[in-house]
Amino acid sequence: MSDSRYMALALALGRRGHGQTWPNPAVGCVIVKDGRIVGRGATRPGGRPHAEVVALAQAGAAARGATAYVTLEPCSHHGKTPPCADALAEAGVARVVVALTDPDPRVNGRGIARLRAAGIEVTEGVLADEARADQKGFLSRVTLGRPMLTLKLASSFDGRIATASGESQWITGPEARRLVHALRMRHDAVMIGAGTARADDPALTVRGLGAARQPVRVVLSRNLDLPLDGQLARTAPDVPVWLVHGDRADPALISAWTGLGARLIPVPVTRGQLDPGAALAALGKAGLTRVFCEGGGALAASLLAEGLVDELVGFTAGLALGAEGRPALAAMGVDRLADAPRFDLVETRAAGGDVMHRWTRRGPA
Amino acid sequence: MSDSRYMALALALGRRGHGQTWPNPAVGCVIVKDGRIVGRGATRPGGRPHAEVVALAQAGAAARGATAYVTLEPCSHHGKTPPCADALAEAGVARVVVALTDPDPRVNGRGIARLRAAGIEVTEGVLADEARADQKGFLSRVTLGRPMLTLKLASSFDGRIATASGESQWITGPEARRLVHALRMRHDAVMIGAGTARADDPALTVRGLGAARQPVRVVLSRNLDLPLDGQLARTAPDVPVWLVHGDRADPALISAWTGLGARLIPVPVTRGQLDPGAALAALGKAGLTRVFCEGGGALAASLLAEGLVDELVGFTAGLALGAEGRPALAAMGVDRLADAPRFDLVETRAAGGDVMHRWTRRGPA
Repeated sequence: MSDSRYMALALALGRRGHGQTWPNPAVGCVIVKDGRIVGRGATRPGGRPHAEVVALAQAGAAARGATAYVTLEPCSHHGKTPPCADALAEAGVARVVVALTDPDPRVNGRGIARLRAAGIEVTEGVLADEARADQKGFLSRVTLGRPMLTLKLASSFDGRIATASGESQWITGPEARRLVHALRMRHDAVMIGAGTARADDPALTVRGLGAARQPVRVVLSRNLDLPLDGQLARTAPDVPVWLVHGDRADPALISAWTGLGARLIPVPVTRGQLDPGAALAALGKAGLTRVFCEGGGALAASLLAEGLVDELVGFTAGLALGAEGRPALAAMGVDRLADAPRFDLVETRAAGGDVMHRWTRRGPA
Repeated sequence: MSDSRYMALALALGRRGHGQTWPNPAVGCVIVKDGRIVGRGATRPGGRPHAEVVALAQAGAAARGATAYVTLEPCSHHGKTPPCADALAEAGVARVVVALTDPDPRVNGRGIARLRAAGIEVTEGVLADEARADQKGFLSRVTLGRPMLTLKLASSFDGRIATASGESQWITGPEARRLVHALRMRHDAVMIGAGTARADDPALTVRGLGAARQPVRVVLSRNLDLPLDGQLARTAPDVPVWLVHGDRADPALISAWTGLGARLIPVPVTRGQLDPGAALAALGKAGLTRVFCEGGGALAASLLAEGLVDELVGFTAGLALGAEGRPALAAMGVDRLADAPRFDLVETRAAGGDVMHRWTRRGPA
């Protein structure tokens, strides 16, 4: 098999860690000796041990003289564990193939330099584009200081998420809802606005998929006017609840939520609204790399208007609700088509009786 | 080859006539002798000659002793041409395979009886479901007294068809627009509301596809307050324009439009609006079997609310316009999800950078 076939396998292993390894990247590693795969590893839930260490442990003595395929540059710094570059050298690996350099300032080429200094042959850039797509969340956090953001919009085919009276369960079908749970699991956190938290009282947990680690539940609420007896409050001791609130929220509510076990994250208020960019920056600082926003319409519109949505996942159901229905997106202040945020289609397919479509933000032309 | 393989070929031939043969059904015919196809025919543009006559002419003497595959029961009545059942008998065809009985009261089993009376072996019901789907427009006209209606909705992914200022060109891309022209060509008529006619001044013709016959342009306008110098008015002498108007429209405007070459079709006004069911009944009476509605939001909403939309074709573009944008559907009076008109997904795929999705109305459970 060629380098890129082994690297594809390492990428597939690494991707399984999406949503499970934050604040660390989800990395995959395959060790090959004489055409045989002797070790496979992926970053473990919680971010440690790293993929290389897992794969080396599996390979044992067979690692000597072998080639290691790693989706991200091995680390070179002493963190909570010794550097992976050293572990590869000590195991006697002869060659390391790397998909992507790690832009983390603590690594950034030093891992590769350390391997070469130890006499290991290094090949860089194999399936780099694929690795970059897989590491989008980690790269966003390291280079932009904020997590990658995926926005979900599930609506009737005329873009409505509820009737005028607020009835919204269910517009999409069970298969679409199952896919939403799978998407939650592949993100570090699920985020909603305060209006949705009040209206739907959701649990936002991953159900029925055997998740090793539940995503953090994030609610953006300027005034912390959220039900203290809702599902989020009740389950806060078991699954993390982070509340991003305005810097002038009522201290009594801050205390109450802290007492319930929530993590409180203050951010500035601009023009009467929580600054969405500041909210994401705070989430990135707290270690999140991949955030999945499930609305509602006001939060989704402000994230889109600020250019903060990296990926979009739409579910379109086969029913019409008409203009009295609640819109999937609130007002955005877009008056000219040229100013509208645009996305490139990645994939569309049926999801049960609904249409699933995935998009990625259009980069500068 | 089996009967169903030959019938599938006949169906494919017949379908090519969609939009071209009204008021007659678009039929296909294949004549097979000793395992060889000796004749192929489809109803010609304008509805005559019928498919059987075209195929028999191609087969010539080879039709004697052959099997004819016809997608719809051959006609038995003397219309503008002699009955096809007689033509098949006179040509000496030994066996006729029919997909679907013609519910037209002038035929309705008499064509098949006439064939059997002439000593021809008849097999019925081969690929009947496929034939029923292909003949949806003709069957709708004969059994419900109205044409089949396809509604197109092309919008941003939040269901908007223009910005607040009315900018709408272009939300979807060139490939989606090309598909819309192909859909126009496969329908007998293209229909819009008066607001769209005023706002967009569209030509509604089929361009760039070499259409043999242009679809009729239908505008629903209660008061006939349409621009007398717009594209529809200017092109009315070349491509039919039919105006469905309220029974109290200004006689001067009726005269003016008649003078421009338009066909005027009065229908009753209910609750201040043109009755959409009455409008479609009038179009059915005028011979249309397949109508393609391109909006706007008010007409689309009233057609959906009245349960008159048989097929839905959506184009979803990768841009967000927000709640100030103009909605694809106006108010529909749906307050409970259970009351919303529902559609079953037929197909979804990429159309250039947009998503195309096709739906069919959900029948009674």
